[in-house]
Amino acid sequence: MDNWLPSLIVPTPTEGYDLAVKLARIAVKKTQPDAEVRDKLRKDYGADAGALIAVSQVVATHFATIAIANNHWRVAK
Amino acid sequence: MDNWLPSLIVPTPTEGYDLAVKLARIAVKKTQPDAEVRDKLRKDYGADAGALIAVSQVVATHFATIAIANNHWRVAK
Amino acid sequence: MDNWLPSLIVPTPTEGYDLAVKLARIAVKKTQPDAEVRDKLRKDYGADAGALIAVSQVVATHFATIAIANNHWRVAK
Amino acid sequence: MDNWLPSLIVPTPTEGYDLAVKLARIAVKKTQPDAEVRDKLRKDYGADAGALIAVSQVVATHFATIAIANNHWRVAK
Amino acid sequence: MDNWLPSLIVPTPTEGYDLAVKLARIAVKKTQPDAEVRDKLRKDYGADAGALIAVSQVVATHFATIAIANNHWRVAK
Amino acid sequence: MDNWLPSLIVPTPTEGYDLAVKLARIAVKKTQPDAEVRDKLRKDYGADAGALIAVSQVVATHFATIAIANNHWRVAK
Repeated sequence: MDNWLPSLIVPTPTEGYDLAVKLARIAVKKTQPDAEVRDKLRKDYGADAGALIAVSQVVATHFATIAIANNHWRVAK
Repeated sequence: MDNWLPSLIVPTPTEGYDLAVKLARIAVKKTQPDAEVRDKLRKDYGADAGALIAVSQVVATHFATIAIANNHWRVAK
Repeated sequence: MDNWLPSLIVPTPTEGYDLAVKLARIAVKKTQPDAEVRDKLRKDYGADAGALIAVSQVVATHFATIAIANNHWRVAK
Repeated sequence: MDNWLPSLIVPTPTEGYDLAVKLARIAVKKTQPDAEVRDKLRKDYGADAGALIAVSQVVATHFATIAIANNHWRVAK
Repeated sequence: MDNWLPSLIVPTPTEGYDLAVKLARIAVKKTQPDAEVRDKLRKDYGADAGALIAVSQVVATHFATIAIANNHWRVAK
Repeated sequence: MDNWLPSLIVPTPTEGYDLAVKLARIAVKKTQPDAEVRDKLRKDYGADAGALIAVSQVVATHFATIAIANNHWRVAK
């Protein structure tokens, strides 16, 4: 994993949200590097409402950071 | 899901809150893309106080971001 | 639910706190619109320390947002 | 509960922390107004590490708000 | 517990982090004042990954507050 | 553990993210100093989706702090 995150600047909130989802996943990857284990876990928590909501919480936290970086995209593009 | 979030700017806190609810749901959708599974989960967590409060936490986090984007709607509209 | 949140501006921190409690509840309402189910859940989590603390966390998050909107009420009223 | 929170301004971080603890408790009080039930719950969660840590999280969130209100007490008193 | 927190200003991020750990612990102390009970709980949650991660979350929240107070130590010392 | 965190300034978001992961781990280390116990716990929570998501939440909170310290790396490097 080289310089996988060169910048937090993205043109639209839509792309900012996608980046937030990505950032949320990377920490899981770094804590559990075994892809096979992660695939198994994904199947489990994909059917667990509590886990899905917790993922959404992490995304919300990262989205806040990305939104600040982009001045909340106040100038429409 | 095209450019579903072109802007964080909304005229009132009421609409800002609705947008926060939407943002909270999208992450669940992106993590569990199967609508049928999500429908089943929704029935479960709709009757689970802990899950409902956790959803409310995600909404609060997104609402904070949207409020900043809109300068907290300090000028009444 | 019309324009139920026209503004985040309130004269005192006390009222800001009450508004935070309200914001925390609305997300539950929007996720579980059935009042009867909510009444039943309220009885359950009212006796569940973990749920009560989680509600308090949501209130704290909304209170932070409302405090910013009101410049933290730095000028006493 | 009259105007119980007239201001977020306190002279020291120590008092700011105490105020954060108070704010964390009020939400529980507002959600579960029955003092007898709360007393019973307090005994339970006082011996539950998870609940105590969750309380500490709420306090941390309120402390952040109070610290901002007081400009982080950057001028020593 | 007198004026145990006279200031949030510390010379380095390292010390800021230590202060965050301290702030996280104080709320537990204030909620469960019995040192014997706390010692017992500490043994339990020291072997509970979920509790340890939750403690780390509280520390992260306090560290954010302390970092702001210190202008994120942007001028190296 | 000497001055292990001399600065929050890092050249890229990628390195900022790595630093966030490190900060998330240090609190666990400080709460459970026994390396053997931590190794055992790591094996457990590495296969527990809820714990992995919780770690990701802590990382997100620290990343927000580090991003502010670095002015969100708004000038590309």
